[in-house]
Amino acid sequence: MPGMLDTSASGVYIIAATPFTDTGDVDTASIDRLMDFYLGAGVTGVTVLGIMGEAPKLTHAESVALTKQVVRRMNGLPVVVGASAPGFASMGALAKDVMDAGAGGVMVAPPSTLKTDDQIVQYYANVAEAIGPDTPFVLQDYPYASGVYMSTSVIRRIVQENPSCKMVKHEEWPGLEKLTAMKTMMADGSMRRVAIMCGNGGLFLPQELERGADGGNTGYAFPEMLVQLVKLIQGGKREEGHDLFDRHLPLLRYEQQPGMLGLAVRKYVLKKRGAIASDAQRKPGIKLSKEAIAEIEFMLARLERKN
Amino acid sequence: MPGMLDTSASGVYIIAATPFTDTGDVDTASIDRLMDFYLGAGVTGVTVLGIMGEAPKLTHAESVALTKQVVRRMNGLPVVVGASAPGFASMGALAKDVMDAGAGGVMVAPPSTLKTDDQIVQYYANVAEAIGPDTPFVLQDYPYASGVYMSTSVIRRIVQENPSCKMVKHEEWPGLEKLTAMKTMMADGSMRRVAIMCGNGGLFLPQELERGADGGNTGYAFPEMLVQLVKLIQGGKREEGHDLFDRHLPLLRYEQQPGMLGLAVRKYVLKKRGAIASDAQRKPGIKLSKEAIAEIEFMLARLERKN
Amino acid sequence: MPGMLDTSASGVYIIAATPFTDTGDVDTASIDRLMDFYLGAGVTGVTVLGIMGEAPKLTHAESVALTKQVVRRMNGLPVVVGASAPGFASMGALAKDVMDAGAGGVMVAPPSTLKTDDQIVQYYANVAEAIGPDTPFVLQDYPYASGVYMSTSVIRRIVQENPSCKMVKHEEWPGLEKLTAMKTMMADGSMRRVAIMCGNGGLFLPQELERGADGGNTGYAFPEMLVQLVKLIQGGKREEGHDLFDRHLPLLRYEQQPGMLGLAVRKYVLKKRGAIASDAQRKPGIKLSKEAIAEIEFMLARLERKN
Amino acid sequence: MPGMLDTSASGVYIIAATPFTDTGDVDTASIDRLMDFYLGAGVTGVTVLGIMGEAPKLTHAESVALTKQVVRRMNGLPVVVGASAPGFASMGALAKDVMDAGAGGVMVAPPSTLKTDDQIVQYYANVAEAIGPDTPFVLQDYPYASGVYMSTSVIRRIVQENPSCKMVKHEEWPGLEKLTAMKTMMADGSMRRVAIMCGNGGLFLPQELERGADGGNTGYAFPEMLVQLVKLIQGGKREEGHDLFDRHLPLLRYEQQPGMLGLAVRKYVLKKRGAIASDAQRKPGIKLSKEAIAEIEFMLARLERKN
Repeated sequence: MPGMLDTSASGVYIIAATPFTDTGDVDTASIDRLMDFYLGAGVTGVTVLGIMGEAPKLTHAESVALTKQVVRRMNGLPVVVGASAPGFASMGALAKDVMDAGAGGVMVAPPSTLKTDDQIVQYYANVAEAIGPDTPFVLQDYPYASGVYMSTSVIRRIVQENPSCKMVKHEEWPGLEKLTAMKTMMADGSMRRVAIMCGNGGLFLPQELERGADGGNTGYAFPEMLVQLVKLIQGGKREEGHDLFDRHLPLLRYEQQPGMLGLAVRKYVLKKRGAIASDAQRKPGIKLSKEAIAEIEFMLARLERKN
Repeated sequence: MPGMLDTSASGVYIIAATPFTDTGDVDTASIDRLMDFYLGAGVTGVTVLGIMGEAPKLTHAESVALTKQVVRRMNGLPVVVGASAPGFASMGALAKDVMDAGAGGVMVAPPSTLKTDDQIVQYYANVAEAIGPDTPFVLQDYPYASGVYMSTSVIRRIVQENPSCKMVKHEEWPGLEKLTAMKTMMADGSMRRVAIMCGNGGLFLPQELERGADGGNTGYAFPEMLVQLVKLIQGGKREEGHDLFDRHLPLLRYEQQPGMLGLAVRKYVLKKRGAIASDAQRKPGIKLSKEAIAEIEFMLARLERKN
Repeated sequence: MPGMLDTSASGVYIIAATPFTDTGDVDTASIDRLMDFYLGAGVTGVTVLGIMGEAPKLTHAESVALTKQVVRRMNGLPVVVGASAPGFASMGALAKDVMDAGAGGVMVAPPSTLKTDDQIVQYYANVAEAIGPDTPFVLQDYPYASGVYMSTSVIRRIVQENPSCKMVKHEEWPGLEKLTAMKTMMADGSMRRVAIMCGNGGLFLPQELERGADGGNTGYAFPEMLVQLVKLIQGGKREEGHDLFDRHLPLLRYEQQPGMLGLAVRKYVLKKRGAIASDAQRKPGIKLSKEAIAEIEFMLARLERKN
Repeated sequence: MPGMLDTSASGVYIIAATPFTDTGDVDTASIDRLMDFYLGAGVTGVTVLGIMGEAPKLTHAESVALTKQVVRRMNGLPVVVGASAPGFASMGALAKDVMDAGAGGVMVAPPSTLKTDDQIVQYYANVAEAIGPDTPFVLQDYPYASGVYMSTSVIRRIVQENPSCKMVKHEEWPGLEKLTAMKTMMADGSMRRVAIMCGNGGLFLPQELERGADGGNTGYAFPEMLVQLVKLIQGGKREEGHDLFDRHLPLLRYEQQPGMLGLAVRKYVLKKRGAIASDAQRKPGIKLSKEAIAEIEFMLARLERKN
């Protein structure tokens, strides 16, 4: 079904920023512009309302409206919606409304209160029930942010027990051996196939692709680099891929500063590139210092020279 | 203004359970019954949708409807509504709707991501703005659950900078010296007066009252004991107060088991006492084992003999 | 072998305070006096250098000397020594030296860095190797302090894979269902028998004994109560046991305040009862406020009247 | 005094690996070889027994012996010794012994149990007392590893109240604005001057130097790059500095994988470069997979071509 998330996901599912006006309203004109920018870069899907989408600052109604608009603009590409929530009621309500709005699936990270393997597995059984068995979901494995560490055996249990789990967003900072372990389990049949798309801010994307990841699921402000990198590596042009990646690595690394600071960098570049009208974050947000702006401009100038 | 939370809060603000039917619906008939039970016990206010009110399991609409019903039934007593949320958008939206529904204020605990003193102070400035400057709020100081430790100087800064902070829910397990420090700051004028109502599951309520707390803000299934204890201690009948409290301490302690297990004990007793029709928790909840039920019954029998 | 910890442990293994002089030296005279006090109360073993023994404030040499002295005084009763450490080198070195000094075993809590089930199991395999396969050890399951949550299946794996694990110190605040689960696994043969001795500050000791715990492993300043309680409950005198326990519960609860405050209460009472010469904690320690002392004295007076 | 840490520290204080033989003994021959390698690269100081020095796996005696050997070999350059410990007794004992062995100072990170600003400040007052007022110390500000977040006002308080604090190891992942804030406080006199040396695995070293950091305090396996980078940036050759840094960034990033995996990468390269005889980690350690080795070799080959 077009637009539905399934286990064949690959390429780049871009983590979308949420554009706001300087006064803090959702900037719907920029949403369209940003989606066109992503489409022009060749992305194969989009994830909205993740951490870097400032999801907790949007009301339920705004979240649903944004999803509708993005779905319309993305021309049938899968739209995944972040649906992590402190309770199953709001998670279920959001999942229902965004799926009705045409989303292709939802992404759920575990709450930091989960401790044992069994608790994590049980949590995702509850998630699958709360969002409905027909709603495809992405298991987000991001321990740095969630505080929850999933062993590969836990991921396998979640995948095996929940047919609606279609994809793992892999970002264990970086967890390369875990990625290899998951690929091995899929190869030997001990875990059914799901898509493995990598976050980690893109910092290890070449290695991840070489170890068998299906693609990237991150939001670097030069999405065309991510798209091209996937093609080069998967097409066997390894040196060329690394050359491309290494040129971007200084800026990519700078954009990966934790929390809303990294987002400020990303939005600054997206604005400069014309993809959004304002780089404002909705309150409480942060602004770049003049030192930070100078550092970004310096790196952009160097990047341009090297391209 | 009747029903509005202000700094004169005292007595017992009961932490209300949320009654569900065995099939997981909000049990509106039991809400009325439970409020009558609390009123009959002599409470002076009620806090709904706290942790022990299973708040994250209710949708926004259910939360607002429950608030409306409770406000109507409580005859002008203040109704405080838990409004802790991962983002200010949903916090602000809930605060607006429950205040429109007649609530007297909201209670906000800090998110575990806050680390430094300044971050905590800034967070509550944002809270005050998100819920609106006219919405009275309770600062919940419950580090065991929130993971956030506030020094007395942080509490003072929050109180001094936010006139809409009317009450501190004190439960630092137990934090008796902190309570004394806050009373001292209020006495010497270095902190304006706010109500200090104590949680801690009631486990230290006699000592807290003797150190100057204004009352209790907990949900023990014998609220009449809490009410009577406040009267006895504040009326100078110390030994009598402790005699009363000590009779209940075995059960009170048993009810303070962490998480949803403690709530299961509480609801079991509330049901047995006729205050609610079912002791079911909404999913994901837990059920008491037969061993636990036998233990509760044993303690109830002993309590009855001693009264 | 006399004095060695084995799976038949029962009764009360008292958590020993470490006596210091007012100037911060280890008070060796008080060590003897305190051990005599414990022996007089009828304890069956002693655990030294736990959290409540201010272990991190002692040097290696002091720890070994204290162990030697306690072993000598305890007349062949098992002496368990806390050996939790940030690294296996110091853990192994301490274990070797205290075992050479006559200790009966060591107790090890997991470091907070452990996350997954597998990591916890692997850690204890490393522990067993570091301390040597002939050194009996106690698995301390105290998530509130360690930050590590062990499911019953993890405990079973540790017990099954490490013959030198002789005892579980159970204190999951309180974890009554987990205790029942462990007893069930031992009864049906899916886990070999180990002793289950309960910490939890003694707050749930009657229920723990009724569910099959072998005894207590806590340090309440009235150890004779703990000893008598075990005898009464295990001897079938349930009501009498609870009567005894309930009389002490107000003070017991007060002594369970977290961290060094609880220890200050305990040492105050131990000193008052003549078991130690000074209630000083080695720096950094805390002192009781005059309000706290008054509260303790009030409870002691009430306890005396009720006995 | 030669070899003593003071506030004039600059250049590169290399974070030294601890060499072991394949059977787990401290490899004293490789210690000399490694120190010569560092000296040849132009480092201005060395930090031993940090996290990346596998400190918790060494006994006290081994730690002191290693310090002695390093001091002897470093020809009067300051040797800083990691002295973080769970208790002040062992911290004080280690500090005394390594200072007697000729160390120039110690480095102390805060324990994760510290929560409020006041607790952190108090902790370092205790540290200064435990190690002695004449022992220079480095304040390690590494929240990702310690779990403790220090605001700039906390750092200022620690610096102002403890004359023996000579240096801040800055690594707030990356905390560039905090670095600028500290420099501003030193410039306007609100904080006395201390050295600011940056960790962060070197990932942001160019920006840190441009913002006024005095140098690097990290352990990348190409220390000559770090040394040269500091000279270039501090000498005003910005583009040249970034050119150098960017060539190394792919490998540098790969070496910054958390925990012992990053150390395995570092030791692999150090061994390949002849600086140590074995890349073994003392147990419990980890070994590189064949995939990881292939990735490193690929990056090393690319790095060589670009140089």
